[in-house]
Amino acid sequence: MAAGLQLFGQPASTDVARVLTCLFEKNLEFELIRIDNFKKEHKLPEFVKLRDPTGQVTFKHGDKTIVDSRAICRYLCTEFPEDGNRTIYGTGSLERASIEQWLQAEAQSFDAPSSDLVFHLAFAPQLNMSPDEARIVENEKKLQQMLTVYDEILAKNKFLAGDEFTLADLSHLPNSHYIVSSPRGKKLFTSKKHVARWYDAISSRQSWIQVVKMRSENPGSFE
Amino acid sequence: MAAGLQLFGQPASTDVARVLTCLFEKNLEFELIRIDNFKKEHKLPEFVKLRDPTGQVTFKHGDKTIVDSRAICRYLCTEFPEDGNRTIYGTGSLERASIEQWLQAEAQSFDAPSSDLVFHLAFAPQLNMSPDEARIVENEKKLQQMLTVYDEILAKNKFLAGDEFTLADLSHLPNSHYIVSSPRGKKLFTSKKHVARWYDAISSRQSWIQVVKMRSENPGSFE
Repeated sequence: MAAGLQLFGQPASTDVARVLTCLFEKNLEFELIRIDNFKKEHKLPEFVKLRDPTGQVTFKHGDKTIVDSRAICRYLCTEFPEDGNRTIYGTGSLERASIEQWLQAEAQSFDAPSSDLVFHLAFAPQLNMSPDEARIVENEKKLQQMLTVYDEILAKNKFLAGDEFTLADLSHLPNSHYIVSSPRGKKLFTSKKHVARWYDAISSRQSWIQVVKMRSENPGSFE
Repeated sequence: MAAGLQLFGQPASTDVARVLTCLFEKNLEFELIRIDNFKKEHKLPEFVKLRDPTGQVTFKHGDKTIVDSRAICRYLCTEFPEDGNRTIYGTGSLERASIEQWLQAEAQSFDAPSSDLVFHLAFAPQLNMSPDEARIVENEKKLQQMLTVYDEILAKNKFLAGDEFTLADLSHLPNSHYIVSSPRGKKLFTSKKHVARWYDAISSRQSWIQVVKMRSENPGSFE
C-alpha cells in the first residue's frame, strides 16, 4: 500500500513533471501539493506569471524526504517494484546498469544544454526577452551531438536501454517536451529518424499525456 | 503584519474565489495551498476534471481555522482594518449594518438560485449533461425577482451598500461571474440597466481580475 506519498511542487517544473510521470507509470496513489505565495502590492502571484521550468520538487513518504527528481524516481521504483509498470527500472542487474548509465547521461550531459534551450527557445519569447542567439547555437550544437549518439543507439533499440520504456527514457521527457514546443527546437528531434520515432513513442505514454494535461489545465475555459 | 495567512482550496471554487478577492482587496500576504488527490487506475486527477464550483475552502491564521467564505471575509476585514481597502467593510456602524444586511441577503437568497444556475448553465454543458430546463427557469425567475430589487437600489446607490465597493458587492462576484459566462445567464444581468452597470464596475476590480486570471492560468499555453 502506497499511502502517504506527497509531492510538493508545480507541474510546469521539469523536475516535478519527471516525478509525476513516474508516479503515473507506477500507478501509485499520491497527493500533489502546490503552494503559491502571494505578496503584497498587487504583484501578480507567482503561479499566474510564467512558471519557472527549473522550479523545485520535494517528495515525502512518511518521514522520508527526497528532493532530487531522479532520486525520487529511483526510490519509487525500488520501493514499489510490484506496482504499475514493473519493468520501468529494469528486471535484472544488467538491464538496471544500462538504465543507470542513461540516467547519468541525461542528468550530466543532456540536462544542462537542454534546460538552457528550454529557457531560451520556449520561455524567453513569452517573457518578452530577446533570446540569446549565441547561447542557443552553442547548446543546439551540444544537443545535436548527443542526439546523434542517441540516434545510433535507437537504430538498434526501441528505447534507450533496450526494448522497454524505462526511467532512462522517461527522464528525458520534461526538457524535450518544452524544446519540441518551439519550431526551432522541434527540428532537433525530427531531423533524426530514430530519435523522432523514439520521441513520438515516449511522448505518447499515457502517463506523460496526463502530465501535459495537468499543465494546460484550464478550469475557466468556458469563460 | 499579516504573516501566516493560509488559504486551502481551488480558485475555481466560488467560496475560494470569494476569499481570494477579499485577500487581494486587503492587499494581504498569504499562501494558497492546493491539494489534489491522485487515485490509482489512471483515473484523471480531480483537478484535471472540471472543477467543482462548490468546492470547499479552509482558512488558517495561526491557530485559528475558519471554513465559511463569508465568515473568512469578515474576519480579514476586522482583523486587518488598516490594510489595503479600508472601506470594504464599512467605516461606521450604520454602514456596517447595511453591508451585513446585503451579505445576509446574498448568502440566504442569492446564493441558492445562483449556485444552481452556475451548475446548470455553466457546468452541465461541459460535463455533457443535459441542463434541467425546469430548474433553470425556476431559478431564473427567483434571480430575476432579486435582481429587480437590486436594480431599484442601484438606481440610487453606486454600490449595494452605498457609494463604495464593499463586501456586500464582492460576495456576489463568484456566482455572478459563472452565470454571466453563459449567454443565457448574461441576459439576467444585462437586461437591467443599473445591475448591468454595477456588475461591470464590480467585475472590473483589480482584485477580481486577478482571481479570474488565476482560474484561467495556463502555463503550458505555448505548447
